[in-house]
Amino acid sequence: MSIYPTAIKMQTTSAIYPGTFDPVTNGHLDLILRASKLFKRLIVAVAVNPSKTPLFDIEERVALINEVTVGLDNVEVCGFDNLLVHFAEQQDAEVILRGLRAVSDFEYEFQLAGMNKKLAPKLETLYLMPAEKYTYISSSLVKEIAKLDGDITDFVPDTVKQALAQKFSL
Amino acid sequence: MSIYPTAIKMQTTSAIYPGTFDPVTNGHLDLILRASKLFKRLIVAVAVNPSKTPLFDIEERVALINEVTVGLDNVEVCGFDNLLVHFAEQQDAEVILRGLRAVSDFEYEFQLAGMNKKLAPKLETLYLMPAEKYTYISSSLVKEIAKLDGDITDFVPDTVKQALAQKFSL
Amino acid sequence: MSIYPTAIKMQTTSAIYPGTFDPVTNGHLDLILRASKLFKRLIVAVAVNPSKTPLFDIEERVALINEVTVGLDNVEVCGFDNLLVHFAEQQDAEVILRGLRAVSDFEYEFQLAGMNKKLAPKLETLYLMPAEKYTYISSSLVKEIAKLDGDITDFVPDTVKQALAQKFSL
Amino acid sequence: MSIYPTAIKMQTTSAIYPGTFDPVTNGHLDLILRASKLFKRLIVAVAVNPSKTPLFDIEERVALINEVTVGLDNVEVCGFDNLLVHFAEQQDAEVILRGLRAVSDFEYEFQLAGMNKKLAPKLETLYLMPAEKYTYISSSLVKEIAKLDGDITDFVPDTVKQALAQKFSL
Amino acid sequence: MSIYPTAIKMQTTSAIYPGTFDPVTNGHLDLILRASKLFKRLIVAVAVNPSKTPLFDIEERVALINEVTVGLDNVEVCGFDNLLVHFAEQQDAEVILRGLRAVSDFEYEFQLAGMNKKLAPKLETLYLMPAEKYTYISSSLVKEIAKLDGDITDFVPDTVKQALAQKFSL
Amino acid sequence: MSIYPTAIKMQTTSAIYPGTFDPVTNGHLDLILRASKLFKRLIVAVAVNPSKTPLFDIEERVALINEVTVGLDNVEVCGFDNLLVHFAEQQDAEVILRGLRAVSDFEYEFQLAGMNKKLAPKLETLYLMPAEKYTYISSSLVKEIAKLDGDITDFVPDTVKQALAQKFSL
Repeated sequence: MSIYPTAIKMQTTSAIYPGTFDPVTNGHLDLILRASKLFKRLIVAVAVNPSKTPLFDIEERVALINEVTVGLDNVEVCGFDNLLVHFAEQQDAEVILRGLRAVSDFEYEFQLAGMNKKLAPKLETLYLMPAEKYTYISSSLVKEIAKLDGDITDFVPDTVKQALAQKFSL
Repeated sequence: MSIYPTAIKMQTTSAIYPGTFDPVTNGHLDLILRASKLFKRLIVAVAVNPSKTPLFDIEERVALINEVTVGLDNVEVCGFDNLLVHFAEQQDAEVILRGLRAVSDFEYEFQLAGMNKKLAPKLETLYLMPAEKYTYISSSLVKEIAKLDGDITDFVPDTVKQALAQKFSL
Repeated sequence: MSIYPTAIKMQTTSAIYPGTFDPVTNGHLDLILRASKLFKRLIVAVAVNPSKTPLFDIEERVALINEVTVGLDNVEVCGFDNLLVHFAEQQDAEVILRGLRAVSDFEYEFQLAGMNKKLAPKLETLYLMPAEKYTYISSSLVKEIAKLDGDITDFVPDTVKQALAQKFSL
Repeated sequence: MSIYPTAIKMQTTSAIYPGTFDPVTNGHLDLILRASKLFKRLIVAVAVNPSKTPLFDIEERVALINEVTVGLDNVEVCGFDNLLVHFAEQQDAEVILRGLRAVSDFEYEFQLAGMNKKLAPKLETLYLMPAEKYTYISSSLVKEIAKLDGDITDFVPDTVKQALAQKFSL
Repeated sequence: MSIYPTAIKMQTTSAIYPGTFDPVTNGHLDLILRASKLFKRLIVAVAVNPSKTPLFDIEERVALINEVTVGLDNVEVCGFDNLLVHFAEQQDAEVILRGLRAVSDFEYEFQLAGMNKKLAPKLETLYLMPAEKYTYISSSLVKEIAKLDGDITDFVPDTVKQALAQKFSL
Repeated sequence: MSIYPTAIKMQTTSAIYPGTFDPVTNGHLDLILRASKLFKRLIVAVAVNPSKTPLFDIEERVALINEVTVGLDNVEVCGFDNLLVHFAEQQDAEVILRGLRAVSDFEYEFQLAGMNKKLAPKLETLYLMPAEKYTYISSSLVKEIAKLDGDITDFVPDTVKQALAQKFSL
């Protein structure tokens, strides 16, 4: 049984929400919750090999998202290490979902959307803006703060807070 | 019968695409076509009283969009003069759809999304980016060019081109 | 007696917070509150003749700010119709205070700061960013929403809400 | 005889520098000086009917630029009221020259360049950035300051300063 | 004999188009083609030691540009490992040419132009915007896609496509 | 005795100006000078371990700032390796001071300010814009130029110029 309200009415088809999620933050979670109401099936796709070495390995990153999305029955989490448009095809997803937090996001996304449109013309990219209280949260800032013993209670789910504490106390 | 390909698979619920459409351009039309494949019902909502005096009155603007979307069976066009979130409620729409063309769009949209979220927390706003060949088209530039006898064939549908010619030859 | 906490420790010299305030919003008010703790004297300077015709006249705009800042003993409100740097000189203010909400604000402010530096080299301009929950509030959007009978409770103080209701029901 | 250094070596073909020039500022003048060294012929093209009502009429704006560019033998000044790309064709110009001062300029220029490329594929648009000490100068800010009796000595040539004084004392 | 149209009329003096070109894309090539018509001599200057380790070494990067610009008689390609303004001086170039693709480009370029102006006051920097269909192409994205077996036919010349295939199959 | 003018009137409480200062530039120095007149005590806080390996170690960076701020009696320089908000608390500082040079700065600062507000609600962040002649100076560009034997006289104090020369000749 879901711990979330069941008023899921805007069901549609499959969407992919890709990212590094190193680790998942309250900002990501808000977007997952909202998107899970818009699409019949939401695949949170975790990039195995991002350009920078991640703090959490792929299994840890997937596990953390799985924990914090328990009860969201139409949300799946999985890693991918091929081209996003190929992964979307394999998953029969028609939509890529992205968060837009800042102007610099916007520019990068614009570039990416142009490339992807050429690579997979039928795949649409849709954007959501974070709730204003999450606009300033980024995984990198959260890691920096946690590393220096700052309080990250407001920025990540409890499970993630503990995982970060463990990482940095090792 | 539709003149457009029928591979409409990503059916979902109602979305509203609001704007001034003074007049509708190829950029708007591209977005309408793509969105009509993503949602079960797409309502093109034409703002009756935009802040600046429009060149085409509300009936003309609605008529032009109707003409260029003939055959798109899940697209409806109508004017509205109340608050967008109220209009969305009246129409049972769960999604507002907006185009994002430039950084300045992004900033205004961010502000608008924040306001609308407060006014109607359940209503989601989704963004699409225009195909790159339409990023530079705006209704205002089109009007400026048409007024000075420039060739707008590449920027607007034929019907709109004729309507503009008529406006400026009067 | 002040209705606000008295822990005002960062007392300094005079600062001017200029604007049109047509009308004052919760975003402006947050900035006034925070700035009143940073400076010994804070002058909220209301531009008499902004480029666009204001909804509220100068007396109304000043009166609304006075009402919502009652109890902030080091805050003064007054209109001005000369050059801001001249007004600052008359008031013996050493600092201009501005809010920075968005990239477009930033660019305009950058231009303005350059001009003012030439006109009054000793006058410093300092910037504050709004709390994230106020980033999307602007006087113009508030007026648009109020005009169309939208609920502006979250965006402006009660007094301002009533003043707007009265304006638009006339 | 020119009052400017004669080391003009980078001579090429005709370029057009279009604008409203209401009035010409030191920022415009710096760009004209630099461009006059890059092109064989530089046409300063003054838009007769800009969207906003100008303070100076077309004859005054052309006259002011003529005065401040005396001695620059390869610079011509003229008004135009047709489409810029048509005017460029009439003048046998192969290049449009534009100043880029800020991000918002950039976006508008990007849009304009896209449109013009469609209208006149052979016409190239080249951009120059202003010297840093001119980035904050704009005709509108200069007019605002002059109107309120501020000192504009650093922002415009003397002739323009006098013309503004006369306008606002009338 | 050139494979390109011979209508090169806007002949002028020497310009330098600097970059990393790791590898050259269709976006770069479009800019080289257009610039080769504007300047008497165009030097494509390949930075030997960019801050990030390049995929292709300097000989490979120069060779690829040479291959795709065969027939453009006024285009030269060479590596450089000194300061750009010094290299420009050695080459007797009066103009640096840069592409402007996005707001973030703009900001970096603005900073660079300011620095270079101090270092070499007579050297001018001119900017071109890419054709809209190339705005989203970057060497980094192309490499990412090629690495993951994506189709890059639309983004780079054939020679470069083969070179990338070879690099990633090793 | 101070080598700087003594008209320091805007005295207030403690402010922290944090950064990497690798090395301090004329842009930083201008901001320190101006801020030293605004606050009773200004702490230049040098981040010991920035994300990128610095060219100068923490002792060198602190020493260089100390040298160039001799005579500014209310300026202290020290390294810190904990969370900025914790360091501010230890120093009893009520204000963080930051420079805002470009749109990308603005976005990062906005994110940082949001995070810090959550971590330390009473700590205010104030922003200053650099004088226009310093907008284009960054420590990274200065290092790049110095490394390639470019003249950095206009960008950094003499002491820093010598320190850079020594670093790159080793």
